[in-house]
Amino acid sequence: MIDFAPILKNYKPTWKQNQGLQATASDVMGRINAILKRDGIRARSLLVGSVAKGTNLASGDIDLFVIFSKDYSPREMEKLGLRIGHEVLPEGREKYAEHPYVSGQLGDRKVDIVPCFEIAPGTRIISSVDRTPLHTDFVLKNLDPEGQDQVRLLKLFMKAIGVYGSEIKVSGFSGYVCELLVIKYGSMLKAIEAFATLKGKMRISLEDGPIREFEAPIVIIDPTDITRNAAAAISLENLSRMKINSRLFLEKPSERYFDAEATYFPEKYRERGTVMRILTIERPDIIDDILFSQASRFRNILVQILDEEGFMPISSEVELSDNIEVMVECKLHTLPATRVHVGPPVDAPNAMDFIRKWSGGRSVLGPYVCGDRLCTDIPVEMRELEVVVRDRIKGFTIGKNIDRLKENMKIIDPSKGSDKFLVLGKFYNRVLPVLPP
Amino acid sequence: MIDFAPILKNYKPTWKQNQGLQATASDVMGRINAILKRDGIRARSLLVGSVAKGTNLASGDIDLFVIFSKDYSPREMEKLGLRIGHEVLPEGREKYAEHPYVSGQLGDRKVDIVPCFEIAPGTRIISSVDRTPLHTDFVLKNLDPEGQDQVRLLKLFMKAIGVYGSEIKVSGFSGYVCELLVIKYGSMLKAIEAFATLKGKMRISLEDGPIREFEAPIVIIDPTDITRNAAAAISLENLSRMKINSRLFLEKPSERYFDAEATYFPEKYRERGTVMRILTIERPDIIDDILFSQASRFRNILVQILDEEGFMPISSEVELSDNIEVMVECKLHTLPATRVHVGPPVDAPNAMDFIRKWSGGRSVLGPYVCGDRLCTDIPVEMRELEVVVRDRIKGFTIGKNIDRLKENMKIIDPSKGSDKFLVLGKFYNRVLPVLPP
Repeated sequence: MIDFAPILKNYKPTWKQNQGLQATASDVMGRINAILKRDGIRARSLLVGSVAKGTNLASGDIDLFVIFSKDYSPREMEKLGLRIGHEVLPEGREKYAEHPYVSGQLGDRKVDIVPCFEIAPGTRIISSVDRTPLHTDFVLKNLDPEGQDQVRLLKLFMKAIGVYGSEIKVSGFSGYVCELLVIKYGSMLKAIEAFATLKGKMRISLEDGPIREFEAPIVIIDPTDITRNAAAAISLENLSRMKINSRLFLEKPSERYFDAEATYFPEKYRERGTVMRILTIERPDIIDDILFSQASRFRNILVQILDEEGFMPISSEVELSDNIEVMVECKLHTLPATRVHVGPPVDAPNAMDFIRKWSGGRSVLGPYVCGDRLCTDIPVEMRELEVVVRDRIKGFTIGKNIDRLKENMKIIDPSKGSDKFLVLGKFYNRVLPVLPP
Repeated sequence: MIDFAPILKNYKPTWKQNQGLQATASDVMGRINAILKRDGIRARSLLVGSVAKGTNLASGDIDLFVIFSKDYSPREMEKLGLRIGHEVLPEGREKYAEHPYVSGQLGDRKVDIVPCFEIAPGTRIISSVDRTPLHTDFVLKNLDPEGQDQVRLLKLFMKAIGVYGSEIKVSGFSGYVCELLVIKYGSMLKAIEAFATLKGKMRISLEDGPIREFEAPIVIIDPTDITRNAAAAISLENLSRMKINSRLFLEKPSERYFDAEATYFPEKYRERGTVMRILTIERPDIIDDILFSQASRFRNILVQILDEEGFMPISSEVELSDNIEVMVECKLHTLPATRVHVGPPVDAPNAMDFIRKWSGGRSVLGPYVCGDRLCTDIPVEMRELEVVVRDRIKGFTIGKNIDRLKENMKIIDPSKGSDKFLVLGKFYNRVLPVLPP
């Protein structure tokens, strides 16, 4: 097996870095606590996330919760939470998860100040944000420093193969899932071995006994709430990526499986002989999870249109940059100038009307008999992919944030332009990071 | 209603023409009878077909049967039948229906000399040819001269709309079916009215009582053998053509519906924006019914290949000239340079073999994960319609007469050549002969 020490050294925060992190966190918490005291707010601040759990990578953010008494109504709590956030991070921007929160920068470190309610373990759930402090407690109690480093290595592996991150855009493994996997299996390598030998779905719990059933590809029972699947966000494809990369790594271990910056992007693409187009829409100012859902819907609608209209889509991809970028790849660019229009049976009362309607040059050819029906070849006015898509997309509701922008949609042939599109990188980067055998 | 007398005058044989026909027929029968007597063959000659039934058009053939005693074995009968045919028609060629027979020319008149067995009405069937003399008897007994002319008009109508002829190539109405329809309904116009008002399938018998059920679109119980459907050869499409043209004719009667030479071929075709190719194979020397079956199979195989390979065929047609001509029309001419090759599930034992096989530049892109499986984009070597068809057709058995000729198959782009192809006429001639409303 390869030596993991140098890898860990590269990505784990140094003692000095951690001191800086802790100082920043303490400073922010102090300022929050002063505001709480000054205004008589029944709440407390708490450091959460990977910094609190000791599983952070050198590049990690600082996540701070302001935990409110359950006496407050959700509206009061949100209002007070945002006021505190803006006072502490004057340059911060409002973002929205389950509750609104303030996200800003202190030095080169990202800081999120997120309000939530106090709950006790096993209590009826208020929101998923409210559970985070419980997760922090559980991880701190169950991981020693060696275990924390194993979590860091597992995160690096997952980042390198592109399955790390619970946001919708990734639909991958969260930090908490990495921590539970190391607690369950004992080490990063044991967790990877579990994925390498896993057949079908993953079903695990930290406790003995039967495991509650969920639909998801991976079920990891949350030890702080046994009614919840902590791995619900993970897609089948990301489970599959984790399985096959675990097998590949164990067959031929390499440091490359821990290097998120390594690129497997081929130097030169082979000619695909297809019709590739990139559709871009200006990016509306909403949070990524909501935007990505709408962008995915946009992509699905485009593929549906291309399929229904006969352009034969063979692949598609979506990515967010300054724009929403959707790539579609089809077999056909220009439809035939005619298509078969199937009419009524020859003995139906309206058969004569069909003939009157489509005779005298209004058909490309016909009417004629096909089986027991009348048919005619009618002219197709809109034949080019760009023209058809622009026309058909009008009839679809994608989402309120995109609909008003879709009129300014651009359709670009990437073989003709020199622009760089992130979506092309995502498409070509699907290749497995496999070393030549 | 239009006046049918001028139409009949144009196509019915004159008194003088009929005298000539009868003289030729008597001459041939005399020569056959002399041979039978000379060689002591237990058989007799009989004039059959439309000439015998008095329902012939001016252009009709002479059909003569040599009816053998049932004492002969089928092989003896066939051998003697051919010997007689060759002696009477020294220039004649052997053809094959249910028995082999000799077909030749006397003056400008086609003559067929067909051997068959003697049977009595209702007797166990020996072959369909053996029934023909019974049909002649039945029609002569049930049609007067006016009825014979009505049959001629019905044949002209059916010829004009392209549904006359029981050979496989046409799959339409036989002369005998026309005769039964006039006997049943009383006149050509009444028969046309029956088709114009018919919903669904046609089920008729000349007798009262229940009608035996057959699968065919039209069932006309043969009055000389109630176990037989005289209309079995008629396709659903030809029944539909007969129905809709009957409706059109009755709505706006016109002499054009009796003019088989009238062409509805549009002067100039509208641009179809498709990929059209004509494939030709030299015509082997076999009878049309067998040749057409093989040619149809050839067409079906071509469409199957084009469909399976992703060229998206939208229409096809087959016709016989000096060659077998098949027209295919597709949406796509050149396939993408890559296609998705779906591999095993990521957790299958052979997943690693798949990755080893398709890594290192052997894929256009991949391997990558799709759902719970591995996939890879593999190169497509044969991309053009002509190349793919020539390669794939090798693996198919079309029929012994075509298979040895298919290596010399030509594939022609009709938009580039000036050659006339009958198959294009057949395709464009599908349009209904409808007068502008």
